[in-house]
Amino acid sequence: MSEDPRAFESALERLTCVIPAGGVGSRLWPLSRANAPKFLLDLTGSGDSLLRATWDRLRPIAPPERIIVVTGNAHRESVAEQLPELVQANLVTESEPKDSSAAIGLAAALLELRDPDAILGSFAADHVIRGDVLFQRAVATAARAADQGYIVTIGIHPSHPATGFGYIACGGSRGDIAQFDLYGVTEFVEKPDAEKAREYLEHGGYLWNAGMFIARASVLLDRMAESEPELVRALREIAAAWGTDRGAEVRERLWPSLPKIAIDYTVAEPAAAAGDMLCVAAHFDWDDVGDFASVANLLTRGRGSDLAVLGDGAQVLSDASSGIVVSDSDRLVALVGMEDVVVVDTADVLLVTSKRRAQDVKNLVNRMKGSGGRHLL
Amino acid sequence: MSEDPRAFESALERLTCVIPAGGVGSRLWPLSRANAPKFLLDLTGSGDSLLRATWDRLRPIAPPERIIVVTGNAHRESVAEQLPELVQANLVTESEPKDSSAAIGLAAALLELRDPDAILGSFAADHVIRGDVLFQRAVATAARAADQGYIVTIGIHPSHPATGFGYIACGGSRGDIAQFDLYGVTEFVEKPDAEKAREYLEHGGYLWNAGMFIARASVLLDRMAESEPELVRALREIAAAWGTDRGAEVRERLWPSLPKIAIDYTVAEPAAAAGDMLCVAAHFDWDDVGDFASVANLLTRGRGSDLAVLGDGAQVLSDASSGIVVSDSDRLVALVGMEDVVVVDTADVLLVTSKRRAQDVKNLVNRMKGSGGRHLL
Repeated sequence: MSEDPRAFESALERLTCVIPAGGVGSRLWPLSRANAPKFLLDLTGSGDSLLRATWDRLRPIAPPERIIVVTGNAHRESVAEQLPELVQANLVTESEPKDSSAAIGLAAALLELRDPDAILGSFAADHVIRGDVLFQRAVATAARAADQGYIVTIGIHPSHPATGFGYIACGGSRGDIAQFDLYGVTEFVEKPDAEKAREYLEHGGYLWNAGMFIARASVLLDRMAESEPELVRALREIAAAWGTDRGAEVRERLWPSLPKIAIDYTVAEPAAAAGDMLCVAAHFDWDDVGDFASVANLLTRGRGSDLAVLGDGAQVLSDASSGIVVSDSDRLVALVGMEDVVVVDTADVLLVTSKRRAQDVKNLVNRMKGSGGRHLL
Repeated sequence: MSEDPRAFESALERLTCVIPAGGVGSRLWPLSRANAPKFLLDLTGSGDSLLRATWDRLRPIAPPERIIVVTGNAHRESVAEQLPELVQANLVTESEPKDSSAAIGLAAALLELRDPDAILGSFAADHVIRGDVLFQRAVATAARAADQGYIVTIGIHPSHPATGFGYIACGGSRGDIAQFDLYGVTEFVEKPDAEKAREYLEHGGYLWNAGMFIARASVLLDRMAESEPELVRALREIAAAWGTDRGAEVRERLWPSLPKIAIDYTVAEPAAAAGDMLCVAAHFDWDDVGDFASVANLLTRGRGSDLAVLGDGAQVLSDASSGIVVSDSDRLVALVGMEDVVVVDTADVLLVTSKRRAQDVKNLVNRMKGSGGRHLL
């Protein structure tokens, strides 16, 4: 099937972008906190939060009426502040976090009522992407395939054998739907070890899983209902009452009992197993900015060996050629003989670790949850 | 000559202890500052400054009338606060720092006028000593030898091949003066490299130079006058006018032009070359606490492998088995995967280095002198 520009346009016109804005990002503690989650942080030094950058990236694809943010009650005001253009009705709040199936599923159920043919694209609020035109093109291709009933993800061509991301194993090309870059998904694979990651890179056909999903809202919900019928029934009931007198009552009754389960398990993996999952292979720069080592790499990209510095008032004196200083104070940070160090200097907590051990910050945070340090999380 | 207890007592009764309290201790920046020099810091976690601990160590040897502190004008109030028992007339201030020959020499010139037979003992304000009885015994022996016209130092038996201290090469025993532990000094040697330090330890006869001098005030000045006659003439003129109407005028006229030179070069080395220098070999614990690695070692001594923590409100979360956190804030300091790290957390400066590179803090401070960072020193 040849590519028909009108078919692309028509699909894009029915695309609503959903931004699930949850997740504290505990590997980025003490910069990230319960009241300052990762998506509200500026991790690129651009001056914009990751959420704001996500909005700006999606705006050329969809007008404000077709961008929905799903977030926790606690972050309602911060999100509204970051996104003054956000339409009031499109700010969907959760009374408590219930993971991505419920968050994206609720948005899908709301969309389905607005338009039975609505296409939903879900894009994380806390990733970094460079190459907006390539991103937009990938979304357009994905929307076109979604319009035909597929569940579509966008995979990123690996630039190196990363061990910090999940991978998508791709099968045959689907040139019947879109001429370029569209493939069947064989399976989703977990974060590999270094050897496995090298194999993936050499073998080809493995893309980074950027956690994006594009599908008709009803297709997504029907797929989810196969493994979680109660969840989907509840979501549709909440959506039906949404904005009515009964809205709050229905949500308060149903939401607390919803299962916490990632959309990977209710939608992506079952769809891949059934052969209904497609993947757009994309070439834009993407990072989930999972820890301070990632932040350092993002900041120094293209500048060779250098210490990364993030922070407004940051003054740094250093002889280091690698590592990162994150400062939200006006203090001088002096480093002597420290390579690959991670220093995060906040008002009430100072963290010192190494790029190599940056992932283990999560363990520390978990230890603090069980101890007296909860107020600092 | 057998030991006569009365001779010891007589010498000790004429001993005046001089505490030169100068030197910022720039390797301990940012804890040490121009307005918070090393001698005013508590580096042992005892609650006392090093100066106060020095005073308390000397008090069993000499009453307040026979303890003099020489310090900079800027530190006059801090010193008086630390040492309320200090006799007003014994707080000698310098209008500008002129190194140890001038500082100790001025005290000697003042003492010589009080008592032509006065014995002066100079003890640094910023060293750490454990084993006060052994220290007192060593001082008594030194005073006895000083009474006989020698210039005497106290050397410490090395416990390990330290490369951070100077050494004293000892010659034959001087049992003719004191029965135990008194030797001629062959020469003073600079900080050795690791190989040389091991040789010294194996060879024996090499002691750590703790920078202590005990001598008759007049002997010390006469020795100094051989290489620096102008300096000694000026010091004696300042001393003669001290406390009179002309005191301030004379000091203001002469002090600024005095040469900056360490007493090692004007007294100790020439005396050793002339065969007039003796050394008491002592067994007390001594450390000049030259950098944060020394502070860490002092704090963890006897507790095996452990992270050292210094600071009142210090809260530390760490998986490290070595290194040091110095805190003068109430912030939480969290370390993940950092061994041998040095973290110094102050209100306006954060320093991160390693025990191995702790000496290089001085280089950083020197760089800052030439740049815009002077106000933080």
